[in-house]
Amino acid sequence: MKMKKVAIVGASGYSGEVLVQLLLNHPHAELVAVTSRQNVGQTLAQIFPKFASHPKSKTLQFTEPNAEVLAKQAEVVFLALPHGVAAEYAVPLIKAGCVVIDLSADFRLKRADIYKEFYAHDHPAPELLKQAVYGLPEIYRDDIKKSLLIASPGCYPTSILLPLIPLLKAGLIKPEGIIADSMSGVSGAGRKAEIDYLFCECNESVRPYGVPKHRHLSEIEEQLSFAASTKVTIQFTPHLIPVNRGILTTLYITPSEKFNDAAGADALGKKIAEGYAKAYANEPFVRLLEGKALPDTKNVVGTNVCEIAWRLDPRTGRLIVMSAEDNLVKGASGQAVQSMNILCGWPETAGLV
Amino acid sequence: MKMKKVAIVGASGYSGEVLVQLLLNHPHAELVAVTSRQNVGQTLAQIFPKFASHPKSKTLQFTEPNAEVLAKQAEVVFLALPHGVAAEYAVPLIKAGCVVIDLSADFRLKRADIYKEFYAHDHPAPELLKQAVYGLPEIYRDDIKKSLLIASPGCYPTSILLPLIPLLKAGLIKPEGIIADSMSGVSGAGRKAEIDYLFCECNESVRPYGVPKHRHLSEIEEQLSFAASTKVTIQFTPHLIPVNRGILTTLYITPSEKFNDAAGADALGKKIAEGYAKAYANEPFVRLLEGKALPDTKNVVGTNVCEIAWRLDPRTGRLIVMSAEDNLVKGASGQAVQSMNILCGWPETAGLV
Amino acid sequence: MKMKKVAIVGASGYSGEVLVQLLLNHPHAELVAVTSRQNVGQTLAQIFPKFASHPKSKTLQFTEPNAEVLAKQAEVVFLALPHGVAAEYAVPLIKAGCVVIDLSADFRLKRADIYKEFYAHDHPAPELLKQAVYGLPEIYRDDIKKSLLIASPGCYPTSILLPLIPLLKAGLIKPEGIIADSMSGVSGAGRKAEIDYLFCECNESVRPYGVPKHRHLSEIEEQLSFAASTKVTIQFTPHLIPVNRGILTTLYITPSEKFNDAAGADALGKKIAEGYAKAYANEPFVRLLEGKALPDTKNVVGTNVCEIAWRLDPRTGRLIVMSAEDNLVKGASGQAVQSMNILCGWPETAGLV
Amino acid sequence: MKMKKVAIVGASGYSGEVLVQLLLNHPHAELVAVTSRQNVGQTLAQIFPKFASHPKSKTLQFTEPNAEVLAKQAEVVFLALPHGVAAEYAVPLIKAGCVVIDLSADFRLKRADIYKEFYAHDHPAPELLKQAVYGLPEIYRDDIKKSLLIASPGCYPTSILLPLIPLLKAGLIKPEGIIADSMSGVSGAGRKAEIDYLFCECNESVRPYGVPKHRHLSEIEEQLSFAASTKVTIQFTPHLIPVNRGILTTLYITPSEKFNDAAGADALGKKIAEGYAKAYANEPFVRLLEGKALPDTKNVVGTNVCEIAWRLDPRTGRLIVMSAEDNLVKGASGQAVQSMNILCGWPETAGLV
Repeated sequence: MKMKKVAIVGASGYSGEVLVQLLLNHPHAELVAVTSRQNVGQTLAQIFPKFASHPKSKTLQFTEPNAEVLAKQAEVVFLALPHGVAAEYAVPLIKAGCVVIDLSADFRLKRADIYKEFYAHDHPAPELLKQAVYGLPEIYRDDIKKSLLIASPGCYPTSILLPLIPLLKAGLIKPEGIIADSMSGVSGAGRKAEIDYLFCECNESVRPYGVPKHRHLSEIEEQLSFAASTKVTIQFTPHLIPVNRGILTTLYITPSEKFNDAAGADALGKKIAEGYAKAYANEPFVRLLEGKALPDTKNVVGTNVCEIAWRLDPRTGRLIVMSAEDNLVKGASGQAVQSMNILCGWPETAGLV
Repeated sequence: MKMKKVAIVGASGYSGEVLVQLLLNHPHAELVAVTSRQNVGQTLAQIFPKFASHPKSKTLQFTEPNAEVLAKQAEVVFLALPHGVAAEYAVPLIKAGCVVIDLSADFRLKRADIYKEFYAHDHPAPELLKQAVYGLPEIYRDDIKKSLLIASPGCYPTSILLPLIPLLKAGLIKPEGIIADSMSGVSGAGRKAEIDYLFCECNESVRPYGVPKHRHLSEIEEQLSFAASTKVTIQFTPHLIPVNRGILTTLYITPSEKFNDAAGADALGKKIAEGYAKAYANEPFVRLLEGKALPDTKNVVGTNVCEIAWRLDPRTGRLIVMSAEDNLVKGASGQAVQSMNILCGWPETAGLV
Repeated sequence: MKMKKVAIVGASGYSGEVLVQLLLNHPHAELVAVTSRQNVGQTLAQIFPKFASHPKSKTLQFTEPNAEVLAKQAEVVFLALPHGVAAEYAVPLIKAGCVVIDLSADFRLKRADIYKEFYAHDHPAPELLKQAVYGLPEIYRDDIKKSLLIASPGCYPTSILLPLIPLLKAGLIKPEGIIADSMSGVSGAGRKAEIDYLFCECNESVRPYGVPKHRHLSEIEEQLSFAASTKVTIQFTPHLIPVNRGILTTLYITPSEKFNDAAGADALGKKIAEGYAKAYANEPFVRLLEGKALPDTKNVVGTNVCEIAWRLDPRTGRLIVMSAEDNLVKGASGQAVQSMNILCGWPETAGLV
Repeated sequence: MKMKKVAIVGASGYSGEVLVQLLLNHPHAELVAVTSRQNVGQTLAQIFPKFASHPKSKTLQFTEPNAEVLAKQAEVVFLALPHGVAAEYAVPLIKAGCVVIDLSADFRLKRADIYKEFYAHDHPAPELLKQAVYGLPEIYRDDIKKSLLIASPGCYPTSILLPLIPLLKAGLIKPEGIIADSMSGVSGAGRKAEIDYLFCECNESVRPYGVPKHRHLSEIEEQLSFAASTKVTIQFTPHLIPVNRGILTTLYITPSEKFNDAAGADALGKKIAEGYAKAYANEPFVRLLEGKALPDTKNVVGTNVCEIAWRLDPRTGRLIVMSAEDNLVKGASGQAVQSMNILCGWPETAGLV
């Protein structure tokens, strides 16, 4: 099979780095260009010593990002850029016939006004919003196949949407009153020189932030609303914890069906188990935990897997669902590669673990 | 002022170690005995090199725990023992006229049947339950003054009760539907040789556990029920995170008064601020955060302080309250010393920071 | 190409876990048996949730270790057992015609008396010592090809021998007075339930241990003596640092040639660079760093690569060489797989990164 | 006793923060001014929430550093500034009659040419070099008493000089060939917004840096030369490890007396033990470890103590000495306060643990 040429715009951040790793080792994609304003002229090996054993690392140099040039080099272009900036590149690249897989927030929402509410500036390319597909493969696989612009989901949203969407779609849970409590590793903050993310400021520390209206709520609620066919508003609290990678989300949910004892929990539990099995039993990157197992980020870091477990509490009548993922893989770059695999007609797991 | 003689039974665990530290340096208490079955005959300096600069560390040796002997040596005895075991020592020590400050769960509940439900064995000394005072000084200061048996609260309960009790008492929040999501450092698991708490099993990991019915729920719900004058059932999910010390709790609460816009939030916010100020403005160990500040365990570790901040979310109508404490200090040994200070008529902050 | 059947004896420790990971994903080897006394009857997925996405993880169950049974199942058997125990399995397996790759210390030394001096018990199978090949592929590749018993090197030795052997062989450095100062992650201590390796005992801590006569000195000095053709005695100090994986070794060496200024350093530096290039320029798993780069464990963790950099100090006349490796991969399981690849005639990098 | 007024110039870095903590709680010093260009107008409580429980934290505001103003406010001024900048304040403050305790490198050397060699700019106030006392109390206690300008030692130098000076002075070790291998926590790099010190760049990483000519060598070698009465050149390699605070140094030394067996080691060991006991047995902040104990940074972090242990290796004829300290306390701010205590005639341990 001929290798497809791919490029990464903004390859020096943490999700850019994971993209480089995945694409250097992908069986069907050939990484032909990496851009980074501050590293122009340097090789991959110089900026990422960990990739230095790969033959391409010594020759592939960072270039200035230039849509026109990239469009000639690559068929698929990944954008690992800040929101607002990504759209600048997406527009000309799509016009030039490239497939664009955008890891920023720029094309995740359908409504430009919601974008403005949460990101505090006008949407830079509202005309493309309709065309973009939200790149959550387990939910939008068929749309991804036909799309030229993938809006790859955020890390928190992935950890929240994968557990909730099947239950909402099946009507097993109420769309009201959902709470998502998340803990994220520090790589989620990006490779930015800020005091707040210094080792000594994060180590031996845990803290909430962005309370109560984090930007990711916009895409979370839009997607949940689609799944529930009604407007969904949720509570979301992110916390920063001292790990490099990993997000653990605990969801508090009211089932549609009431229960208040073990028997009721058993009966309802069967339906929830069936709902999840129907949605995910054959998904390569969703792992439904069994027995006493609970999610643990250390079991998913470095992989594209999202672990899910749940418990019913007869004392409170609530369903608690817990998920774990690697924020840089399933929550960012791995999921973007998964979308590329689908879109290009390759095995969905190609180049991913 | 004459020094009061104090002893620690079970001084080799993590809360025992912090008790040693606090009592070695206490201005009014003299540590005269430390017990630990596995360390009999060894000095404090040998077991805890970090205390080796204290003159007493070279002479004070660990002994076998023996209530009769301890009763002759000390006026105040701290029990840092597993639940079920603590009661064995409390009974004879109290009979012998000692003040007992118990850091285990043995005397925290008023009802022996609830104890059995959560701890899976009969209560070892139900006759003492009535006599014990729940050692949360900000709530039970007057009772502590008159008590001979202090049941010092658990680490999670402290982080949950301090934020909730004033609001429940003031009728500002509904007693139904409360959710407590907590993250704890690994010292909360104790100094036990178990695979689960090895460095490599905890580092680069975050995981929930004890879902949905953790033992600490028993004392949390009993105390909340007292505050609300009605039976309170809450949802509580603890998570283990890779820090040595610290608990961060995020509480999801429905205020008694509805609000759905910024104006409503402002009006209600004033009442909540007043409620907290009334309860805690003069408390030396509760820090009400102002402005944009949110709790961070790194700001309380090593101190007896519990930080509290809150936000109202007009999108969901919920109140989110966040607290941070050192699980071994305000969540265990510091709070126990605070109770001793009150009980002995010393300044409440003596020997504490 | 037909898959070769392989087994792991002692697959529940940290190096066993990495072996499982590497062999589950190896292109030419099929993992057919894993043993672990304490996990008999459990599947790989139950003990290692992180491997649960691999189809084989749900069916492959841990068994009691039994050499006779293993010899029928597998052609290559990896022993990830404590020293002293490994030999018990190696003897019957070799007799039965299996290739044995032993990750313990049992067959690393040529002399049984040195084994006894450092391991404090008689060697359990001295007759096999001559037959065993020290599995450091960069040095013993040709011998590995022909061997049936590979003694895979220890983690510290690998980090010390790879930098030193080429220089000793080339006569560029003096065999006297070498000092190796090493820092290791906690996984080096194994998955053992001991207080010393609890999270809270290792986190925010750095400490030396095994000073001045660590067991690994025996194999280090034997191998250095072979390289130098004279008896070599070195100074070695290991330190425990709070990372999961990784060893960083700093070596202090006296070059054979004196120098005391920048010009002398330049001249000598050329020879050292040539010596290293000659030895390692084409080695897939040794990375010679260039320019200002210095080794960093984060650039090798998860890979089979050993990074090496060096500096000459005209102020002291010394050569400082620094190396970094993943103690569980190049320092243990990855190197063992590398030996298997060589031995089986597969590409040396098969299944390794 | 009347409180002495003290000020801190540059109070927002890590050593500034520890100075604030120590001085807020000092029994004889009153913190009257803190400066920080970027925090002018903010209170201590706003910048350091952890000090918010101290009454003074709400009123003491950061000001612009101004020597004239400071000289009127305070009798003792601590400078926690970068090298080169500190001297600018020291000169006018001393002229105005203040005692200056400088934590930078500006006054640690006696020779301005050595300063220029290592710090790459002309010394800003060479006329003060003679007047300054190197603030290592265990060595220069008597000089500190009479000085008005204390050059408080660097963190690495303290961990190297305390173990070496008594042995050099007693002639027990050779001044040639000494090697110091050190590991430091990340706070040693300061509170600077640089990519290299982000959590994700330091966590799960260990790396050497500044090889082979770190700036601290200048003061280390000058002090060792004074102790040995001959020019001493040493090898020094610092490493960065993922802890917040703490330095562990391992020293490789050739004793003056040869030995090559256990009996020789015993005989020499007695002399070394005596040498250390003579120097440090009564020192409150040096802890000579006994028996099998080895230094561990977790036993000294948060204290002004330096732990020292040593071993003789009959195999190599070397003496290995290991030390542990908190780089921000004994390695910086605690030691500075210790000097202040001596200089002011207070108990040397006042305000320190």
